[in-house]
Amino acid sequence: MRPAELRALLGQVKAGRVAPAAAARRIGAAPVERLGFATIDHHRALRTGFPEVIFAQGKTAPQVVAIARRLFARHGLVLATRVDEAARAALAAAFPRAEVHERARCVVLRRRASRGAGRGRVLVVCAGTADLPVAEEAVVTARVMGSRVELLADVGVAGLHRLLAHRHRLRDARVLVVVAGLEGALPSVVGGLVDRPLIAVPTSVGYGAHFEGLAPLLAMLNSCAAGITVVNVDNGFGAGYAAHLVNARGRS
Amino acid sequence: MRPAELRALLGQVKAGRVAPAAAARRIGAAPVERLGFATIDHHRALRTGFPEVIFAQGKTAPQVVAIARRLFARHGLVLATRVDEAARAALAAAFPRAEVHERARCVVLRRRASRGAGRGRVLVVCAGTADLPVAEEAVVTARVMGSRVELLADVGVAGLHRLLAHRHRLRDARVLVVVAGLEGALPSVVGGLVDRPLIAVPTSVGYGAHFEGLAPLLAMLNSCAAGITVVNVDNGFGAGYAAHLVNARGRS
Amino acid sequence: MRPAELRALLGQVKAGRVAPAAAARRIGAAPVERLGFATIDHHRALRTGFPEVIFAQGKTAPQVVAIARRLFARHGLVLATRVDEAARAALAAAFPRAEVHERARCVVLRRRASRGAGRGRVLVVCAGTADLPVAEEAVVTARVMGSRVELLADVGVAGLHRLLAHRHRLRDARVLVVVAGLEGALPSVVGGLVDRPLIAVPTSVGYGAHFEGLAPLLAMLNSCAAGITVVNVDNGFGAGYAAHLVNARGRS
Amino acid sequence: MRPAELRALLGQVKAGRVAPAAAARRIGAAPVERLGFATIDHHRALRTGFPEVIFAQGKTAPQVVAIARRLFARHGLVLATRVDEAARAALAAAFPRAEVHERARCVVLRRRASRGAGRGRVLVVCAGTADLPVAEEAVVTARVMGSRVELLADVGVAGLHRLLAHRHRLRDARVLVVVAGLEGALPSVVGGLVDRPLIAVPTSVGYGAHFEGLAPLLAMLNSCAAGITVVNVDNGFGAGYAAHLVNARGRS
Amino acid sequence: MRPAELRALLGQVKAGRVAPAAAARRIGAAPVERLGFATIDHHRALRTGFPEVIFAQGKTAPQVVAIARRLFARHGLVLATRVDEAARAALAAAFPRAEVHERARCVVLRRRASRGAGRGRVLVVCAGTADLPVAEEAVVTARVMGSRVELLADVGVAGLHRLLAHRHRLRDARVLVVVAGLEGALPSVVGGLVDRPLIAVPTSVGYGAHFEGLAPLLAMLNSCAAGITVVNVDNGFGAGYAAHLVNARGRS
Amino acid sequence: MRPAELRALLGQVKAGRVAPAAAARRIGAAPVERLGFATIDHHRALRTGFPEVIFAQGKTAPQVVAIARRLFARHGLVLATRVDEAARAALAAAFPRAEVHERARCVVLRRRASRGAGRGRVLVVCAGTADLPVAEEAVVTARVMGSRVELLADVGVAGLHRLLAHRHRLRDARVLVVVAGLEGALPSVVGGLVDRPLIAVPTSVGYGAHFEGLAPLLAMLNSCAAGITVVNVDNGFGAGYAAHLVNARGRS
Amino acid sequence: MRPAELRALLGQVKAGRVAPAAAARRIGAAPVERLGFATIDHHRALRTGFPEVIFAQGKTAPQVVAIARRLFARHGLVLATRVDEAARAALAAAFPRAEVHERARCVVLRRRASRGAGRGRVLVVCAGTADLPVAEEAVVTARVMGSRVELLADVGVAGLHRLLAHRHRLRDARVLVVVAGLEGALPSVVGGLVDRPLIAVPTSVGYGAHFEGLAPLLAMLNSCAAGITVVNVDNGFGAGYAAHLVNARGRS
Amino acid sequence: MRPAELRALLGQVKAGRVAPAAAARRIGAAPVERLGFATIDHHRALRTGFPEVIFAQGKTAPQVVAIARRLFARHGLVLATRVDEAARAALAAAFPRAEVHERARCVVLRRRASRGAGRGRVLVVCAGTADLPVAEEAVVTARVMGSRVELLADVGVAGLHRLLAHRHRLRDARVLVVVAGLEGALPSVVGGLVDRPLIAVPTSVGYGAHFEGLAPLLAMLNSCAAGITVVNVDNGFGAGYAAHLVNARGRS
Repeated sequence: MRPAELRALLGQVKAGRVAPAAAARRIGAAPVERLGFATIDHHRALRTGFPEVIFAQGKTAPQVVAIARRLFARHGLVLATRVDEAARAALAAAFPRAEVHERARCVVLRRRASRGAGRGRVLVVCAGTADLPVAEEAVVTARVMGSRVELLADVGVAGLHRLLAHRHRLRDARVLVVVAGLEGALPSVVGGLVDRPLIAVPTSVGYGAHFEGLAPLLAMLNSCAAGITVVNVDNGFGAGYAAHLVNARGRS
Repeated sequence: MRPAELRALLGQVKAGRVAPAAAARRIGAAPVERLGFATIDHHRALRTGFPEVIFAQGKTAPQVVAIARRLFARHGLVLATRVDEAARAALAAAFPRAEVHERARCVVLRRRASRGAGRGRVLVVCAGTADLPVAEEAVVTARVMGSRVELLADVGVAGLHRLLAHRHRLRDARVLVVVAGLEGALPSVVGGLVDRPLIAVPTSVGYGAHFEGLAPLLAMLNSCAAGITVVNVDNGFGAGYAAHLVNARGRS
Repeated sequence: MRPAELRALLGQVKAGRVAPAAAARRIGAAPVERLGFATIDHHRALRTGFPEVIFAQGKTAPQVVAIARRLFARHGLVLATRVDEAARAALAAAFPRAEVHERARCVVLRRRASRGAGRGRVLVVCAGTADLPVAEEAVVTARVMGSRVELLADVGVAGLHRLLAHRHRLRDARVLVVVAGLEGALPSVVGGLVDRPLIAVPTSVGYGAHFEGLAPLLAMLNSCAAGITVVNVDNGFGAGYAAHLVNARGRS
Repeated sequence: MRPAELRALLGQVKAGRVAPAAAARRIGAAPVERLGFATIDHHRALRTGFPEVIFAQGKTAPQVVAIARRLFARHGLVLATRVDEAARAALAAAFPRAEVHERARCVVLRRRASRGAGRGRVLVVCAGTADLPVAEEAVVTARVMGSRVELLADVGVAGLHRLLAHRHRLRDARVLVVVAGLEGALPSVVGGLVDRPLIAVPTSVGYGAHFEGLAPLLAMLNSCAAGITVVNVDNGFGAGYAAHLVNARGRS
Repeated sequence: MRPAELRALLGQVKAGRVAPAAAARRIGAAPVERLGFATIDHHRALRTGFPEVIFAQGKTAPQVVAIARRLFARHGLVLATRVDEAARAALAAAFPRAEVHERARCVVLRRRASRGAGRGRVLVVCAGTADLPVAEEAVVTARVMGSRVELLADVGVAGLHRLLAHRHRLRDARVLVVVAGLEGALPSVVGGLVDRPLIAVPTSVGYGAHFEGLAPLLAMLNSCAAGITVVNVDNGFGAGYAAHLVNARGRS
Repeated sequence: MRPAELRALLGQVKAGRVAPAAAARRIGAAPVERLGFATIDHHRALRTGFPEVIFAQGKTAPQVVAIARRLFARHGLVLATRVDEAARAALAAAFPRAEVHERARCVVLRRRASRGAGRGRVLVVCAGTADLPVAEEAVVTARVMGSRVELLADVGVAGLHRLLAHRHRLRDARVLVVVAGLEGALPSVVGGLVDRPLIAVPTSVGYGAHFEGLAPLLAMLNSCAAGITVVNVDNGFGAGYAAHLVNARGRS
Repeated sequence: MRPAELRALLGQVKAGRVAPAAAARRIGAAPVERLGFATIDHHRALRTGFPEVIFAQGKTAPQVVAIARRLFARHGLVLATRVDEAARAALAAAFPRAEVHERARCVVLRRRASRGAGRGRVLVVCAGTADLPVAEEAVVTARVMGSRVELLADVGVAGLHRLLAHRHRLRDARVLVVVAGLEGALPSVVGGLVDRPLIAVPTSVGYGAHFEGLAPLLAMLNSCAAGITVVNVDNGFGAGYAAHLVNARGRS
Repeated sequence: MRPAELRALLGQVKAGRVAPAAAARRIGAAPVERLGFATIDHHRALRTGFPEVIFAQGKTAPQVVAIARRLFARHGLVLATRVDEAARAALAAAFPRAEVHERARCVVLRRRASRGAGRGRVLVVCAGTADLPVAEEAVVTARVMGSRVELLADVGVAGLHRLLAHRHRLRDARVLVVVAGLEGALPSVVGGLVDRPLIAVPTSVGYGAHFEGLAPLLAMLNSCAAGITVVNVDNGFGAGYAAHLVNARGRS
């Protein structure tokens, strides 16, 4: 309950239009919906600017569909991430107009197209072809939240000129998401070229002493370039979400 | 060399005002200064909006002072972090007007006060008293870069009301830096309350299975609240730097 | 052999009713039953208040059934955990009245319903839908031992009001089991709200730098809230067992 | 604010005795005290049954004394843990009647002796002489909270008879705290002998592949004895606190 | 080439019965057999008292059979460990009298039964039913090398009396192999009861913070009982082999 | 763009044969080809002496074929590593003359045989039969680049004479690649016998506390023999590539 | 209490010479001595063949002296390991005839020289000069227990001939202790040359990715040579103790 | 003993000029010198082209001096690395003409200057000022072995132009040593620019999730640039040694 609502409610208590007991209930209550296996937080859109996102990993297909139904009914906008094949099929069956992003393993449901919420642009940069699914999760996320997003693929540091050729695009973005597996050096190099916030995403692309993303994660956390922040391994969603927050708030 | 400069130079070559060999040298050359033990990157201010910052750890006091002299002469603005006691004393002796931040282990040299570069405000939130040095490194950094910064100390999750009492301040910030040791849960709780970018900083405050910051680092990387990005353990500097980039760019 | 029994036996030796050699055998002997691949500890019920529980992981279905038969014959009460599909089917076939808990992967065999052994109530709190199987293992375990148990699902810290709405239920419990994956922050928040013993259970729900439960495990071990103890990743059984011991002994 | 207080306040709003704005302030406010470097949570005693405990590691001696003064003034009862030598001296100087526990690195300040808050007894069992400081931290903590506590020292598993000789004392306790370094096997052995809650504390006593407590921590988390819960390495305080909660609540 | 052989050879050179060049070849040559993908070390039986053992993991079934053929032809005694199902079938087809140990994943080929090579007895002790495959690998190995071996199964530390009932058997063995998963406490307890060499084998039986055997491995390396040595996780073969060396040499 | 080319271009600008804008584009541009999911770096052959190698892991079969087509058209020489079965089949279908190395999981496409580029010889030494696929990846790589390569298989340190018999071949090589799993001791032993560069390759062959190659990786990094350098676990490609660079450059 | 004693006692109960209550006390009692901070296990000499050894790490000098006094009074033979300088001085002052081994950090107290308890010889082999303190701890331990021991120093694998020159001594030992830091390859090489039990001791000699002994520990656990068992990093004591058990029991 | 020597010796045996027993001794003997605490391997210079290097860590100053004396007497050339201050002083006292490299912690003793042994040049590249001590250890090592060496300092990836300005020097080297702490990205960037062997050296410069060099070590092992090999953290010696081997052998 936002402060203004609280003050209004207390005014009504004073005026006798709301009983103290009822007011106490409302102050204590929360706009949640219970499904037994899930407690949907409809209030989140007010608090954080976007409805609850469905993290589908570890949920059954029927659970995902049930949660999606409630969220869609209330908000007209649903993003589900890490949706496995069964749940993607179930959502596509339940929502014929669902946008299914196979490679990014995301599903988007929406009543109307997002309006552009930021004045700038989010640039997602990706070191290798195998990192694309993670990069695309970032793209889908930031777009569904309302940002304009561009993708620059396969510009790893072993071929610097591929990257340097795009120096202008790097510098024109409001915020960058840089996705890399293997040794995760790309954010350090890009970070030395720009004066914008840069969100680094390590991926699990690699083998051996890569430890499924640990190597680039550590590299990014220790980057010699200032201004870099990091999200979890393969967390394209988190990077896209944070990038949109940076971009969107440029307007206020 | 920025694109406009390159085009101008090539125009001069065509006009015969600059010899090709000289142009080739200038295109290839870089505005760096060599000290033997260090190669100062004066170009960085153009590229990233702020002069090179001195990461003093592992450098001797004379090295730190020598680098500071060159940077100050050229830019009139120097930030040195992780400055040990000997180097702090050496800098204070060499620059009588140096601002020495003991607890944050930072030293600032500047010709004139920073102008406010961002339209919003950076809020640094800190879980415990022992996390303060890291939080203050973030405060000093963002301030010297030009942001307005506030600090909210000792509001750990085990006493939620301490935090909830500040809900408005949390929501009014343009960007938050949340500093926590022990289990590192504070960013998740704060992240669920706001719709702003949140930069989480794990600290080495803890013992035993804390592994000198590993526990809160992993917690923050795995946060259930969206929009959180993370920097290295005890990296207040990096968080303050990134927060300023988010805040400052609100103007363009 | 409990002390009273030992004194009685020695009295009989003195009285000549039991030969020294026979007494020596009985003092040395243990009430175990050997199956070749297993040595069943029937004495455990005397010692620890509950018959040996079958940890079915790594045992073949016939082994599980064979052990269950002996335990059921002697005690009329069997709990088997981590029972895979094959062993669940085998137990269901061998014991038509077996209670099979699919999601919790537990099977319960009992002659009569457990009597309520504790005066208080165990409250199992669960951060996300994907944590439910572990939470239910805790519920089944504490119930079969005789406690009254309630379950509160999907109340993660990113939506604090979902949790705060249940503050009374949290405070009314005799002991709490708090189950969480991802960053494992929930026990810290709940622990700051109550003055009851709280048993934290990290789960393997997460990815990347989660390391299959390591992240929440470390978080819970380093919690800033006092009074929290921790069990192994995904160990709902252990948490339910310990919670019952806390609850049950309230009566004595 | 507890529920009854909230209802009373709202009744006063209705009756016009409290203005809505004032009520809103009180509902939002929290009984905390700010020291700049610390925000003392005086409310915690209401919420969790014991005043905030000072975790002195990482705090300067003056900070520790300042916090202690405020807590003592309000509650008449202060426990400070992990107090280094300087802070122990400072507290002893500031509070002539301070109880200083050198080996356990604890300081207790209290106006009057704790009353026995539990009906049972806490038994702290300790594997080796070098584990004593941790065990004593547990003893001091549970005692200052009001429990009766006994200590059983140096009964490691390599000399089982030392332990078995105390079987009765083990079984008579309401709750056990078992402290062990090296391989951490003691909780498993004790856990197989009793039907009480058992809190295991790994210590950093060891070398080489002990990894400063990791070895016994993992051992305790994987114990084959049911009913064991674990706290952080060397966390005698946490174990003593949790043990008191188990013991104390036996009365309600 | 053993010293006596070398001296004899040199004597023949002196006597002119062997040409220097031929002698140089023999001194340099080694009694190995090359299969392209493998270089069989037939000399090992002389050097270490037992023919090369086939570690079948990572080898194809035809490779295993080919190596077995050569070893059997030369030595009449072959032990293959970690033999997967395909290679077990291939060996059984190629050697109709092969002894296939399904659970231990071993295959033994021999022309005649081993003679008892040790004067003592190897006792293999096993903590839980799920540890049996590893224990049996130890049993098969020590037996095929010629030791008398007994197996004591499912005597974990949570039911001490199961173990103590066998105190005599423990003390009568010449050397013990103790196999345990979970927390790996059994070797410490057994080691405190006997004055014989004890070889501890951690197993991967466990889950969560067990890290597939790391927990008991660390426990065993840090055991408080002296005289314990450790082999790799699940390495029943290595333990059986070492136990036989201890036992067998008792005769010389 | 190599220096000579840059100077020539600038000369043309001066002579008015190339417009400044066009020159600026060429200086900034890079000889890359964009496929949407990949940006092929054709320039690499100039820079590093060999066309871009396809690291096929994480790429779909059609992606691998598409990239191979472009590389083959331009360079007439393609090496693809870590090619799974589907992509191997797709390449074989698309390029009937493809050389498919099943065990090494490599595919080579070339218009004409490589000419010998080095004056020396690369010797690949392999500890066990199960390490062969990694060793062969090194052999294929160094050969396709133009080196003469020999393979010495299954000469582990437990049978030293197998290795010592080849002392001459070890010493005659220009550079050695030594491949070993398990404890990874072979490079230390070989390194003590030769005065040539030695590249050590740990493999994932092992189990338990091997941690999929961590054990030999650490061993090789800590070798007591000087002159050893190390590549990632199972990285036969990297070792073969580096070995060729050492060997090939002997000519210049 | 050994079985024969128990039978005798029960006979006395039957005969009325011992009251049942007294017998119960004796059966339950253990021959331990309590010092408050320590519980000395005098019974251990009966059970395991050697009095309790003082592991002095983490004990104060007065504690070490007090324990030593009791053990010496009862057994006339004391071994203390990991004795720091203060405790070594205190023991030397308290026992003028103490044998102090500075480098091995051991102190031995004994009334009379140990008699040779084994028929064979223990050979301690050491890879480098820096490993000597650990090797000497093994030497002192096995000697004080009664074995004949020899030491072979600085024979690392990078100079194989240093080792091979001692092939006879290696083969003549009854049991070998092989001590190595860095990559820990020595046990694998020695293990391939002998048919005796080999106990490997990793040391913390190294740096960087050595992780204070982890590298050689993993190497030794994964050795390709059969018959090797391992003790904790720097645990010369444990290796010497186990080696004596192997050697000593050769007589029975 | 090299093959030619062996054949000559056997010829002498045949001719009766050497007795078989004496020949057997010489074949078995090794040119080592024993100091009790060390076994000097004088043969190494023959085998590996350079006398044994003294790794001084863990050795006492007198031990280091004693070993240096023997090596100097025989070879006239000694390199000691990781020499602490005490040992540096002792060497300087014992050898007045010793070359002491403070920052690199090396000492060199030689009768005459090294002759240039390679036809090419070794280029040591260093990312930051704090990495200089490691880089200089590489420089000293390669120089004392006879290579021409250049050092390029402080050219980290966050300021790419600093590096690109030296592209020619990078390409002109015969072999590169690239030293970097923090995220260790420099070798990947340099590796993409050159076609020479590149040896990467991670340093312990960093903090937090750097884990004392683990972060750059993993990054370098996972580099996307081919042809990179890696040495241990801070192992400048090893890199310089290997670089010389690559460079020196270019002549043969």
